[in-house]
Amino acid sequence: MPGNTIGERFQLTTFGESHGPALGGVLDGVPAGVSINLERLQAELQRRRPGQSNLTTARKESDQVTLLSGVFEGRTTGTPIGFTIPNRDAKPGDYSHLEGQYRPSHADYTYDAKYGVRDHRGGGRSSARETAARVVAGAIARQFLEQLYPQGPAPAVGAYVERVQDIAMPTPPAFYPTEAVDAHAVRCPDAETARRMEARILDVKKSGDTVGGSIVVVAQNVPPGWGEPVFDKLHADLAKALWSLPAVKGLELGSGFSGTLMKGSEHNDTFTGKTGSIRTTTNHSGGIQGGISNGEDIVLRLGFKPVATLLTDQATVNQAGEDITLSGRGRHDPCVLPRAVPMVEAMVLLVLADHALRQRSARL
Amino acid sequence: MPGNTIGERFQLTTFGESHGPALGGVLDGVPAGVSINLERLQAELQRRRPGQSNLTTARKESDQVTLLSGVFEGRTTGTPIGFTIPNRDAKPGDYSHLEGQYRPSHADYTYDAKYGVRDHRGGGRSSARETAARVVAGAIARQFLEQLYPQGPAPAVGAYVERVQDIAMPTPPAFYPTEAVDAHAVRCPDAETARRMEARILDVKKSGDTVGGSIVVVAQNVPPGWGEPVFDKLHADLAKALWSLPAVKGLELGSGFSGTLMKGSEHNDTFTGKTGSIRTTTNHSGGIQGGISNGEDIVLRLGFKPVATLLTDQATVNQAGEDITLSGRGRHDPCVLPRAVPMVEAMVLLVLADHALRQRSARL
Amino acid sequence: MPGNTIGERFQLTTFGESHGPALGGVLDGVPAGVSINLERLQAELQRRRPGQSNLTTARKESDQVTLLSGVFEGRTTGTPIGFTIPNRDAKPGDYSHLEGQYRPSHADYTYDAKYGVRDHRGGGRSSARETAARVVAGAIARQFLEQLYPQGPAPAVGAYVERVQDIAMPTPPAFYPTEAVDAHAVRCPDAETARRMEARILDVKKSGDTVGGSIVVVAQNVPPGWGEPVFDKLHADLAKALWSLPAVKGLELGSGFSGTLMKGSEHNDTFTGKTGSIRTTTNHSGGIQGGISNGEDIVLRLGFKPVATLLTDQATVNQAGEDITLSGRGRHDPCVLPRAVPMVEAMVLLVLADHALRQRSARL
Amino acid sequence: MPGNTIGERFQLTTFGESHGPALGGVLDGVPAGVSINLERLQAELQRRRPGQSNLTTARKESDQVTLLSGVFEGRTTGTPIGFTIPNRDAKPGDYSHLEGQYRPSHADYTYDAKYGVRDHRGGGRSSARETAARVVAGAIARQFLEQLYPQGPAPAVGAYVERVQDIAMPTPPAFYPTEAVDAHAVRCPDAETARRMEARILDVKKSGDTVGGSIVVVAQNVPPGWGEPVFDKLHADLAKALWSLPAVKGLELGSGFSGTLMKGSEHNDTFTGKTGSIRTTTNHSGGIQGGISNGEDIVLRLGFKPVATLLTDQATVNQAGEDITLSGRGRHDPCVLPRAVPMVEAMVLLVLADHALRQRSARL
Repeated sequence: MPGNTIGERFQLTTFGESHGPALGGVLDGVPAGVSINLERLQAELQRRRPGQSNLTTARKESDQVTLLSGVFEGRTTGTPIGFTIPNRDAKPGDYSHLEGQYRPSHADYTYDAKYGVRDHRGGGRSSARETAARVVAGAIARQFLEQLYPQGPAPAVGAYVERVQDIAMPTPPAFYPTEAVDAHAVRCPDAETARRMEARILDVKKSGDTVGGSIVVVAQNVPPGWGEPVFDKLHADLAKALWSLPAVKGLELGSGFSGTLMKGSEHNDTFTGKTGSIRTTTNHSGGIQGGISNGEDIVLRLGFKPVATLLTDQATVNQAGEDITLSGRGRHDPCVLPRAVPMVEAMVLLVLADHALRQRSARL
Repeated sequence: MPGNTIGERFQLTTFGESHGPALGGVLDGVPAGVSINLERLQAELQRRRPGQSNLTTARKESDQVTLLSGVFEGRTTGTPIGFTIPNRDAKPGDYSHLEGQYRPSHADYTYDAKYGVRDHRGGGRSSARETAARVVAGAIARQFLEQLYPQGPAPAVGAYVERVQDIAMPTPPAFYPTEAVDAHAVRCPDAETARRMEARILDVKKSGDTVGGSIVVVAQNVPPGWGEPVFDKLHADLAKALWSLPAVKGLELGSGFSGTLMKGSEHNDTFTGKTGSIRTTTNHSGGIQGGISNGEDIVLRLGFKPVATLLTDQATVNQAGEDITLSGRGRHDPCVLPRAVPMVEAMVLLVLADHALRQRSARL
Repeated sequence: MPGNTIGERFQLTTFGESHGPALGGVLDGVPAGVSINLERLQAELQRRRPGQSNLTTARKESDQVTLLSGVFEGRTTGTPIGFTIPNRDAKPGDYSHLEGQYRPSHADYTYDAKYGVRDHRGGGRSSARETAARVVAGAIARQFLEQLYPQGPAPAVGAYVERVQDIAMPTPPAFYPTEAVDAHAVRCPDAETARRMEARILDVKKSGDTVGGSIVVVAQNVPPGWGEPVFDKLHADLAKALWSLPAVKGLELGSGFSGTLMKGSEHNDTFTGKTGSIRTTTNHSGGIQGGISNGEDIVLRLGFKPVATLLTDQATVNQAGEDITLSGRGRHDPCVLPRAVPMVEAMVLLVLADHALRQRSARL
Repeated sequence: MPGNTIGERFQLTTFGESHGPALGGVLDGVPAGVSINLERLQAELQRRRPGQSNLTTARKESDQVTLLSGVFEGRTTGTPIGFTIPNRDAKPGDYSHLEGQYRPSHADYTYDAKYGVRDHRGGGRSSARETAARVVAGAIARQFLEQLYPQGPAPAVGAYVERVQDIAMPTPPAFYPTEAVDAHAVRCPDAETARRMEARILDVKKSGDTVGGSIVVVAQNVPPGWGEPVFDKLHADLAKALWSLPAVKGLELGSGFSGTLMKGSEHNDTFTGKTGSIRTTTNHSGGIQGGISNGEDIVLRLGFKPVATLLTDQATVNQAGEDITLSGRGRHDPCVLPRAVPMVEAMVLLVLADHALRQRSARL
């Protein structure tokens, strides 16, 4: 497959550039019979939408999604769900100065190196705007997962901003419901930390600079047995999905790098409980052992770099190989993290939905 | 695809259990005309072989690979390369006590949860022994990449042990040739650090305990333009490939988590140079921008947890849900890192070979 | 992958139902730098459009395609081409009588058996309307193939109606240019045969009945070497692509079933010519040997059944398992063949474009 | 994927050349818990084995398969099944005269055109010997399908030789059990027709010539609902699988080409019966409607060309482009059909097993 598709059974293909007529995608493999709540779906897009607070880019997009197929009388039919999201506030003219210029730490140069042709308007396909289609698909994955276990606790995925630059949550990773996370514009569930993070972001924004940080995502109630050994380990697929988001620089599972300082006798998670309710007393494994979920919380931490687009002058070169000064213009986020929270959730939801279906082939 | 295949164009499928008759694989998509040096191929397997030093498991395996197809008169023919590696020192009897027992932080419980059937002998398919097949394929990928650029510097991949528990290299990530890395049994190229690491490993081995640490892998001379935007970003595919190795807990690209503490103005890599030789003055990006290689060194750091198998007693449960004490037996590594070095290189080589071929479709 | 995607490197995913808001698709893997002529693209859709003559359904659709991404300033950028075709003349009310009824030899019953949920409006996803998206992608494949060989004769694909029921072309399969084929509404290039075919179709149309027949498709100027041995033989991929069209009942390559009556000494194609221009004196092989093109014309014949929708009463059962009489209503083609010609070309073009790219990995 | 893999969920990858050390494959995706009867598996290979009668090649191969993984204590474990079949009677020296020669209607020329490198020994990878691996996998698919429905009638697949050149069965396609088919060396279940076929084959064998014909394959007890609409229609996947066999020239489903002579009112299959036991009164559809099984017998007919290798002299060219005379040597079948019967069954079984698993994702 070319590179715009993810998933084996629950499979998303996306298309669209930042300043073309529309973004969109096709979500194929959704089983028939899933009830689709369009309002909840749209609400997830609002969480990713630009312009939602003074912490984000000023670009105004309603990000209204239209489902073109695959849903009939409120339920999925088993056929592919095609959808589009129009680009309404595209201002390609804002980017004409970028034609032939290579923004530092952006994809401008590498796209030229690869393709020899480039849509320079706002980064074209390399813009984070592309992730809107992922959020649509992730929202459908969420509704599918919720309906998988009508009786029992359904798999749930929650992410939040754990750290902005050096300002960090004082508590270890945990699951927080959306309401708690969205109580603050920065999407950190701890009020005091959130306040400090927001102040920092507004501060660097004033100077035209940017900051990064970390996001924690936790998946609850994933039943034991999801994930394929060897190459398609559950955490390998999660890693690929998460590293495909823009600006990711690091990923940890469970105890992460700090776990590598421990001895085996300290790090091992002791099993306890009875058949049918086997648990571990600690969760250094982060919910996955041998690539397969063990029923504990799946806990991942992602590091995001500071946004590459600055509103200050930067030295760079252009396509002709001349030294130039790039002046900061356009509409950009001083910190990607608040809007990255729904993207991170979407990627985890897509991987879980895929492995939920793959698991159906595990046994005779 | 089921979960035992990796790669789109340069594609490896593996099979085999730790104590079955043989491991093996099929490497499909190798272009015709690659000269295969079997001695070099076997030499890469020796680096992964158990029993190579007192730092590793005592299991004795010659790990002699047999190529069954796809190579004719010393060159690849474009047809799939099937290969096998016999298990000669399998001692399934050593593991009979594990039938129905769940070793802490191993895949025993999750395999049962998934499949309801399990080959308990030495972990079966979940054993790191499975990675021997990856090293075979990685060695062929290396020879392919070397022959891609007969004139120019060919892509080269080198990994080394950067840290064992808290004993770390004093210098930042860099490319080291195999000779420098293999000069010490622990595969750390710094003599003094290597000496301390080896002492630490022998120390924990004495107490039946284990340690982890980190490995750095650097890919040199990767031309600009490899990698697919969006889901199959070069680093997303590298992430999946590397997270599919046993015991991985963390991954960083370029500046990694420490880069998330910087401001954008500090973190951006400035472009310099002329068309055809554009470079960056720093490499926080780790050689990849927007998912596509930019010609700089690709720099990744992996964290490995301490080996889960201990030679001491551990509390756990069995399949019947009874509390039991697991006694430490069998042959295992006190530290996985020295033998993980060739595995890490293999995974990076496989991803690069795959993207080298995918890149051939990028332009008319 | 779920079932709505075709191709490995030049890959089409489609979506859409007959009476939903729109059809569409994503064509991924088109190399950067292909000039796209939108007028020619739209012209190919007109050939498939309903209502183009009195031989076809009365449904009126302009079938105007909108490209949403992947083309910038007239050329492909290497990113996926998303596109939509609105359903303007959808009359879902015309089909309300079909809710819960199973039309004979249609997909109504099998969709219910598979999914338990069904969009009954005009066949939903099972409608031949879905093929409009294939024609869009095939048209882009054609332009890609034409630009692959700027100097030389480019691969060209031409199909035509060879037979309607028992009225057949008097001459063996050959390549006919579009102008010759489209000179007659029935898309048979022989004037006298075309006249008789058209009379037959109008005749059965009057009685509310339908007819089938055969289409021949020929691909010229395909260079030797395209196709993968074993499972992805060029003709195996062509077979899958063509059998995925609605109403196909038979397929022949080269000499087809009549070749199975010959002896090997009669059937073998003798090689002749010099290195670089090796040809065969006959073409019983139909241009493919061992799954790989040999440079001769690729010649295929498809049999299409008579359209299943009749405008007469038919006995059948409904979802409740009751015997009912289905009355003929709606707008349908009395013979699918004239409109199937561009669909057949599209499928062959897509397979050729895919193998053109796959061939780029064949050699070091 | 490169071209040596088939199937999405039940996935076979094969390797091996006619005169290399061994053939083999990896069958991945077999669910855990399938009991494997090795004797029955080996018995299926015997049906494909060369040298089994005077109608086939004189090459002597025991074709003993070794399973290397994925089966533990008689049951599948969910991990990939690797297997090998040694080439014991390889006589590569018999083929040295073929180095650089292009046998008419063989793959010698096209392999050279594609790869520029070629294993000329007995056709290398293009030899029908490659199909032994398919038969192994098909035999496992058969056992899986049989165990899917412990209560009910399990899917069963039976093929037979319907016609050799112009000598044909007097009766329409039907399901025949293996015993009836194997009662005659030619694998035609009608005694009188079988006798005449065998005489014809021995007759052409005497003159060094070859013949083709047709094989019918019928799948019984396939439940309604298998198959994916649009590109992965059940018959499209069957078509690809069957056209990937050597020497196929034509394929028909159900009424086939003769159905294209009928009117819709004659061809439509009338539904009858009650919910849960809906059937059709005729089976022109061949058991598949809209790409999905409808519960009736799946009926396919394949045409096979006469074997291209003759034991007489033939004019051809060599790699240097010189006109030469190819003298007939080596060991070959005068008629491929008797040995193709198990190959055809294997391909149908593999596709059915794959769609059995894919169907598990169809509904919430």
